Amino acid sequence: MLFAAADFAADGLDVCAFGFDINTERYGNVKRERTLESTLAGADVVALPLPYSRDGERILAPFSEKAIMVGDILNLLEEKSLLLGGKMPADFPRKAIDYYAREDFAILNAVPTAEGAIKLALEETKLTVRGMKAAVLGFGRVGKILAKTLVSLGADVTVFARSAEARAWAKVFYCDAKKFCALKEEIGAFDCIFNTVPHKILFADALERAKRGAVIIELASAPGGADAGEAARAGVRFVSAQSLPGKITPKSAGKIIYETFKEIMEEL
Amino acid sequence: MLFAAADFAADGLDVCAFGFDINTERYGNVKRERTLESTLAGADVVALPLPYSRDGERILAPFSEKAIMVGDILNLLEEKSLLLGGKMPADFPRKAIDYYAREDFAILNAVPTAEGAIKLALEETKLTVRGMKAAVLGFGRVGKILAKTLVSLGADVTVFARSAEARAWAKVFYCDAKKFCALKEEIGAFDCIFNTVPHKILFADALERAKRGAVIIELASAPGGADAGEAARAGVRFVSAQSLPGKITPKSAGKIIYETFKEIMEEL
Amino acid sequence: MLFAAADFAADGLDVCAFGFDINTERYGNVKRERTLESTLAGADVVALPLPYSRDGERILAPFSEKAIMVGDILNLLEEKSLLLGGKMPADFPRKAIDYYAREDFAILNAVPTAEGAIKLALEETKLTVRGMKAAVLGFGRVGKILAKTLVSLGADVTVFARSAEARAWAKVFYCDAKKFCALKEEIGAFDCIFNTVPHKILFADALERAKRGAVIIELASAPGGADAGEAARAGVRFVSAQSLPGKITPKSAGKIIYETFKEIMEEL
Amino acid sequence: MLFAAADFAADGLDVCAFGFDINTERYGNVKRERTLESTLAGADVVALPLPYSRDGERILAPFSEKAIMVGDILNLLEEKSLLLGGKMPADFPRKAIDYYAREDFAILNAVPTAEGAIKLALEETKLTVRGMKAAVLGFGRVGKILAKTLVSLGADVTVFARSAEARAWAKVFYCDAKKFCALKEEIGAFDCIFNTVPHKILFADALERAKRGAVIIELASAPGGADAGEAARAGVRFVSAQSLPGKITPKSAGKIIYETFKEIMEEL
Repeated sequence: MLFAAADFAADGLDVCAFGFDINTERYGNVKRERTLESTLAGADVVALPLPYSRDGERILAPFSEKAIMVGDILNLLEEKSLLLGGKMPADFPRKAIDYYAREDFAILNAVPTAEGAIKLALEETKLTVRGMKAAVLGFGRVGKILAKTLVSLGADVTVFARSAEARAWAKVFYCDAKKFCALKEEIGAFDCIFNTVPHKILFADALERAKRGAVIIELASAPGGADAGEAARAGVRFVSAQSLPGKITPKSAGKIIYETFKEIMEEL
Repeated sequence: MLFAAADFAADGLDVCAFGFDINTERYGNVKRERTLESTLAGADVVALPLPYSRDGERILAPFSEKAIMVGDILNLLEEKSLLLGGKMPADFPRKAIDYYAREDFAILNAVPTAEGAIKLALEETKLTVRGMKAAVLGFGRVGKILAKTLVSLGADVTVFARSAEARAWAKVFYCDAKKFCALKEEIGAFDCIFNTVPHKILFADALERAKRGAVIIELASAPGGADAGEAARAGVRFVSAQSLPGKITPKSAGKIIYETFKEIMEEL
Repeated sequence: MLFAAADFAADGLDVCAFGFDINTERYGNVKRERTLESTLAGADVVALPLPYSRDGERILAPFSEKAIMVGDILNLLEEKSLLLGGKMPADFPRKAIDYYAREDFAILNAVPTAEGAIKLALEETKLTVRGMKAAVLGFGRVGKILAKTLVSLGADVTVFARSAEARAWAKVFYCDAKKFCALKEEIGAFDCIFNTVPHKILFADALERAKRGAVIIELASAPGGADAGEAARAGVRFVSAQSLPGKITPKSAGKIIYETFKEIMEEL
Repeated sequence: MLFAAADFAADGLDVCAFGFDINTERYGNVKRERTLESTLAGADVVALPLPYSRDGERILAPFSEKAIMVGDILNLLEEKSLLLGGKMPADFPRKAIDYYAREDFAILNAVPTAEGAIKLALEETKLTVRGMKAAVLGFGRVGKILAKTLVSLGADVTVFARSAEARAWAKVFYCDAKKFCALKEEIGAFDCIFNTVPHKILFADALERAKRGAVIIELASAPGGADAGEAARAGVRFVSAQSLPGKITPKSAGKIIYETFKEIMEEL
């Protein structure tokens, strides 16, 4: 969020930040406010983090010394302020735009996710991507970008996907394409298996046939495509890899938030 | 169609062809039938071309010495035969699968279309793709594959698209992305403009600002994105480029028909 | 040459052209001189074509109505003029820089050569590059760029090269790499064979094992890697493909001449 | 070394390992020998690590509980044994092949070096490679492969190189190319600067103009292209990155040793 704020400040906007007290990088031209009141006063746009909150009561603000209450924001927010937030619930008591729900935001975030996943694959397999036998399970946004990136680095990529349409896209991205039912039979070929499917798809009987030293990079949200315990029992390394953009490349994640906010403002 | 037939024959299927009398390449293991009766007798699958007909009466069969009547096929076709055809009308008097309407077929065909378009761009601009300033109008199947291919050859690619989602995909494919409203202002930068939008989008006032010697490759079906006459008046070279897969790379087009038919048969 | 001239004129240099009387594209800001005298008078740099001459007597000037004699140029050239030419002989009676002999010129020209070769491969094999089984014989400048370009378009590329060093480069470019001695055994796998080796390397006994419908694109200068007659007897299509940059993408060829001349002038 | 040993054992060779007592991954089919005598007895090939030794007296064997003396190997080695080692001195008292000096080995190792450098760049810049402004100083093996890999991931790459030939290669790899003298003026544009030049090239006056938060990845051996102290004073993050293949992707490093040894044995 702070990187996005700095990008807007560099554009000449008057940007204030609140809740970044500890352990943060430099602010650029972003003004540091001391109170929530002064931060919200007169704001044309107010941006909350992603997710805006974990419990619906406190804003997610790990760098803030004190809790920031959602209720306080609702009380102090001016009527004219446009409210942006990540994962805003449908019944939020104030009109708000959920930027996390936007397709363009999700697509742009697939790049840092893919690059982060590849960094993890290097570390965990101890293999270069060039020559790696990689499986990508699922071919949505992250699956597509990840497969394309792996191919451009010289990996030998097989995409597993349910629909004939997704498999056609995979072929067009220079991958091999298979149905999920082929997974059990083919799994022994792969050094690294990237999962993007949010429900179980790699069962114990398939995991048992995996290559010795194979690695699963789990990119989907829970429950994900495989069970960590079953993977461990099968001798397969299981790496949970969620929220990669903010963890590995926060500057680019900030840039994407900045670009998405600009697009939202242009659309109004 | 004949290349697809040869691929099936190479798989060990019993394949008969009818209507390829003149000017054709060799048949491989495809049997050449002399009558429509013998061709259709006992067939599990009967495949018609793309489009199956231009007038609804005669099968599109440019290599046949005699006309092949749709009515004769309807009369002779056995009940058990699965009928496949391209651009079959909804009110066709017999159950038929329109393979042209399948998404996977369209995606796979975007590759020969993109490669064919690039071949034309080389010929018409007299420039290498490496270093070419290219615009891609529209970012559907063909737009995506074309932009990706141009980028991988070292072109400097700007995608013009209406939706924020499409523009996000374009950025993720390492392109620059703009709204259509920026076309008039930006057009002067491009050596080659590939249009995939099936309605007018390049108006005379934009064409007039195009670079001297610029080329438009029109990939969309009629009416397409620009008017040939207006382009000519603006001194822009206009190249109509439809049905590229069958024209430039018929062997790969046959391979795609073969893969699509196999997918259809597996789904049944 | 005329495209290079126009590039220099666009930079603000005072550029005169002589010998482009017929069938030429527009000149841009290049001045058209009527006599050799006025063309050479006061010139800081005089540039001859590539090759400067075929017989050593007349300048290669296919667009000139009259012959331009090398002797006349030698007589009229001022002492201060820097003379540039393509394939200048060592015993040329006047100090001249042979730009064709420069390594940077040869490297830059490998791009239009590779793109031109791929255009020919599309036309001749009737296959898309995506999925094409391609062999590249030799791994010098053209072999490297061609292999890299084929890979980036999704071909399945095997490089044949003599040295372990060249084969290591090929692997690093995501190709398979083999010794020439494996050619006879492997040749049956390839749809298209691009030769860059200037001496015979594809003998009749290998050609006989080639795939039906396979194509050889001969990029090397005579005698080249295969004999056209032997290829014909083996049923392999043989395509002679020399001087592709000037033939297919003359504008880019002109740009490369322009860049090389600029580099030469900076080095002085 | 152990990964290479396992690859040879998987090929069916009779492979013994000595000196891997602690902290090692599993051996595959490699036999674990207890004494140097039994390890060397009857060996056709004996392979020493890279470098074979740091002091010329003890073999580099960080996983060995006891020192392994070079002198003991010389005494025990049979006459028929082929000796391979990394960085063997010219005056080594026994005929030995220095695999580190081979060009093919160095080229193949440029891939894990490039991938490792990119992993470090992600971590240090907190930016994705897609969209990163990257400078590559020097265009030898590592510079070439690194630049190519960065480009294929969507970075905006400028290569700095001395020779016109190297700059031509850089352009052909879809990079921008500049002379080293332009470094001081251009440096402010880059998020990440990868140095492959083994002598000082980034002086304090250039470092001072670097972008805030810029990162230098030093890939060259000492003294390298920049001084860590000067970089620190200029507020530039300096990351020393030597021997990346063995550190980040040891399995692929082992594969490269295996391929190189096979090549050496075939050449004999």
